[in-house]
Amino acid sequence: MIFMKKEKRMKIKYANLEPIMYAKSVAIIGASENPEKVGHVILQNYIDSGYDGKIFPININSTGKIMGIKSFKSILDVKQKIDCAVIAVPAAIVPQVMEECGKAGVKGAVVVSGGFAEVGETKLQDDLTRTANKYSIPVIGPNCLGVMDPRSRVDTLFLPTFKIDRPKIGGVSFASQSGAVGSSILDMINNEGFGLARFISYGNACVVDEADILNYLMNDKDTKVIVFYIEGVKRGKEFVETAKIATKIKPVVIIKGGVTEAGSLAAHSHTASLAGSHEAYEAVFRQFGFSVATDIRDLLNFAKIFDTQPLSTGNRIAVITNGGGTGVLATDALYQNNLVMAKLSKESETALKKSMPPIVNIRLPLDMAGDADDRRFSAALEAIENDPNVDAIMAITLFQTPGADSRVAATMINYATNMKKPMVVVSMGGSYTKAHKEMMESAGVPVYDSPGDAARSLSALISYSKYKKGII
Amino acid sequence: MIFMKKEKRMKIKYANLEPIMYAKSVAIIGASENPEKVGHVILQNYIDSGYDGKIFPININSTGKIMGIKSFKSILDVKQKIDCAVIAVPAAIVPQVMEECGKAGVKGAVVVSGGFAEVGETKLQDDLTRTANKYSIPVIGPNCLGVMDPRSRVDTLFLPTFKIDRPKIGGVSFASQSGAVGSSILDMINNEGFGLARFISYGNACVVDEADILNYLMNDKDTKVIVFYIEGVKRGKEFVETAKIATKIKPVVIIKGGVTEAGSLAAHSHTASLAGSHEAYEAVFRQFGFSVATDIRDLLNFAKIFDTQPLSTGNRIAVITNGGGTGVLATDALYQNNLVMAKLSKESETALKKSMPPIVNIRLPLDMAGDADDRRFSAALEAIENDPNVDAIMAITLFQTPGADSRVAATMINYATNMKKPMVVVSMGGSYTKAHKEMMESAGVPVYDSPGDAARSLSALISYSKYKKGII
Repeated sequence: MIFMKKEKRMKIKYANLEPIMYAKSVAIIGASENPEKVGHVILQNYIDSGYDGKIFPININSTGKIMGIKSFKSILDVKQKIDCAVIAVPAAIVPQVMEECGKAGVKGAVVVSGGFAEVGETKLQDDLTRTANKYSIPVIGPNCLGVMDPRSRVDTLFLPTFKIDRPKIGGVSFASQSGAVGSSILDMINNEGFGLARFISYGNACVVDEADILNYLMNDKDTKVIVFYIEGVKRGKEFVETAKIATKIKPVVIIKGGVTEAGSLAAHSHTASLAGSHEAYEAVFRQFGFSVATDIRDLLNFAKIFDTQPLSTGNRIAVITNGGGTGVLATDALYQNNLVMAKLSKESETALKKSMPPIVNIRLPLDMAGDADDRRFSAALEAIENDPNVDAIMAITLFQTPGADSRVAATMINYATNMKKPMVVVSMGGSYTKAHKEMMESAGVPVYDSPGDAARSLSALISYSKYKKGII
Repeated sequence: MIFMKKEKRMKIKYANLEPIMYAKSVAIIGASENPEKVGHVILQNYIDSGYDGKIFPININSTGKIMGIKSFKSILDVKQKIDCAVIAVPAAIVPQVMEECGKAGVKGAVVVSGGFAEVGETKLQDDLTRTANKYSIPVIGPNCLGVMDPRSRVDTLFLPTFKIDRPKIGGVSFASQSGAVGSSILDMINNEGFGLARFISYGNACVVDEADILNYLMNDKDTKVIVFYIEGVKRGKEFVETAKIATKIKPVVIIKGGVTEAGSLAAHSHTASLAGSHEAYEAVFRQFGFSVATDIRDLLNFAKIFDTQPLSTGNRIAVITNGGGTGVLATDALYQNNLVMAKLSKESETALKKSMPPIVNIRLPLDMAGDADDRRFSAALEAIENDPNVDAIMAITLFQTPGADSRVAATMINYATNMKKPMVVVSMGGSYTKAHKEMMESAGVPVYDSPGDAARSLSALISYSKYKKGII
């Protein structure tokens, strides 16, 4: 396979990102009182987030204090242990600043400054890489947003907090080559109801690259699901080697920019590197059990099911609904996504016949009619949950109907969070529906906007489950 | 092609729905003081909506007034002109009630009651149809939600208003065989920023069927876009005949439930009729220029672009963005949807070179960098809008970036609502982004959540434009 061209990099096979993600002390180089400066926003973030490590603002023009915190003209003046340096100074002086970081003994660095290889300044970037390697400093960036971690409250994002929602603590880690894609997805995570473990926007990847990040996240105990936006991979051999192990440990959801020829050229222009053939990537992704998303919506949808639901190698889905037409659309969606409608066991049929009103046809999709309430939904789930012919459940709860209210939401929470099989909920609608969707999602239920979204997500879960068990 | 089996129906080829949609007087049969009754909710809707026609509540147990309005034991007691009867009484007495409606001279009826062919009571439904035909009454239903029209304020939906958002006045008409699909989509329309012309949930279609509705909506001056959810078509010949004309007048977006074999069986169980082969439908849809949506999201996305944007037969799209990675994803999305990236003319290139900072590469996708503000977006759109090499524009505005604010939203509104070419906006994010998305949508800009959604919608618009001009 053709991966991006090799570049000089440090000897250590996989960079340790712990000093960056869990820095007990951080130097913010380029910190400023001027709110228009990136270094100001970053310092403000560290103050606002409640970061409880030591903060050392560094600015060549420092007069003793920046934003009320003791500041320094150079990192060399600090004379204390510094885990991480966040560098937000003009590109031209970054290599020199890195040299000082090396002398000061920093253990990791994030370079948010742009103006390197992405604008043709490859020599400047090589200088930066060389200096970082000389001191064995894992560097994230340059030309990136850096990192965010709601647990350690590290937050190098130089985007105002009012413009971008910060996610709650959770199990999904998201790494993005592109800062734009990274920040917009980060901003969408809250709306999807799941929480964040680590966010890493790694830009030009002068030292820390995809293989390093994958290696770090697969071993990270807080990360349950790894999500990646990539345009290319720096070290093919190491990436493949890591991928093989990573997907045996936890799910990796990936979206690649540049999957068409034109898109690949756009990626080339964007990252100034060869993006490699799509077919080569696709082959690797499939071979090593990545869950490939074709758009950003599926990326989030897949992350949501992996974050909350158990694995299942079986593809027989039981659809229950309080709206007949949605049952028809769900049936179509199953068969369009390599899933099949389950056939109920005799025991389930008997139980359902007892608990459903005579108007309800006892077969899947189970249309429980528009007046179905929490008791009817609960009876259906109780009858089906242990049915050996059912591998997973899709419950369609339309909150427009008279019987559907917060008790139905509570029923969904009860089953979806306790059952040993995967369960997803589909709820489509406006403000009343959204309020209930949020209730369910805050309790860990994956709720989807359409039967198609739910079916694609179940299909991704089942494909990965089979890969992990060696069935494919 | 195989359509659903023929049933007895009235002689008039296409039913006139005007007496239902624009009723100046309405009898609500089954009206009740009891809030648990469907007839109560419907009467309440007419009162709440500000309907300014005459309302006649009818209930066999009437004691003179229902909810403060003079009521009658039978429609025959009213002795005034009645345009429309809304019938919400037990199925068994519906044929008799219809007989009385005929004698009372009603011009149209909506039967919301269920309990007919969908539960095997075909004789009861045949009785209803026969009676309606005897008096030439166009009947919508039975087993449906009926109609809603924000202009005439007719609203037979027996769903509480707090559970389902009522859309604003607009140009999209939506007809649905399924009440569940109908109500959930109706509930989602507000969130998509466009408004509603007519909503018709037609259920078992005992008299008024798909051909009637298509015929009515194609001639309806308030309807700009027709959207349909169907599981089958009652009268194949008439439907095809109408479809031929309809798509030459205005766009018809359609989603069919039961496109897989299993889904078709589920549809059969749902509507108690043969749904017909998917291939036959697909062939008709394609032949007559329908825009076929494969899920509910695309149905809404397509409606949005048709409602607001001019037609275009050219597929050369100019993508401009303030985030490089999203430009890459958008490029992929174009080529995955039969679109191509436009190549700028020399004139546009020259203009852009003057207006963009040196860091910006003058080519499409135009990555204007993270600090692009309203002036930069405006300069780009001004340079591109009249470029003869550009057929349509996709502007990606990421509101997470420092330069993007409400002025950028205003710029999008200015161009997307005045330009002679189609323009769509992509904005992905959380609360700050959503506020700006709503601003743009309320002004008539189609805003999408992902480059894929935008590309599929542009592709639907272009395919339809070509069909209409006879290019395919």
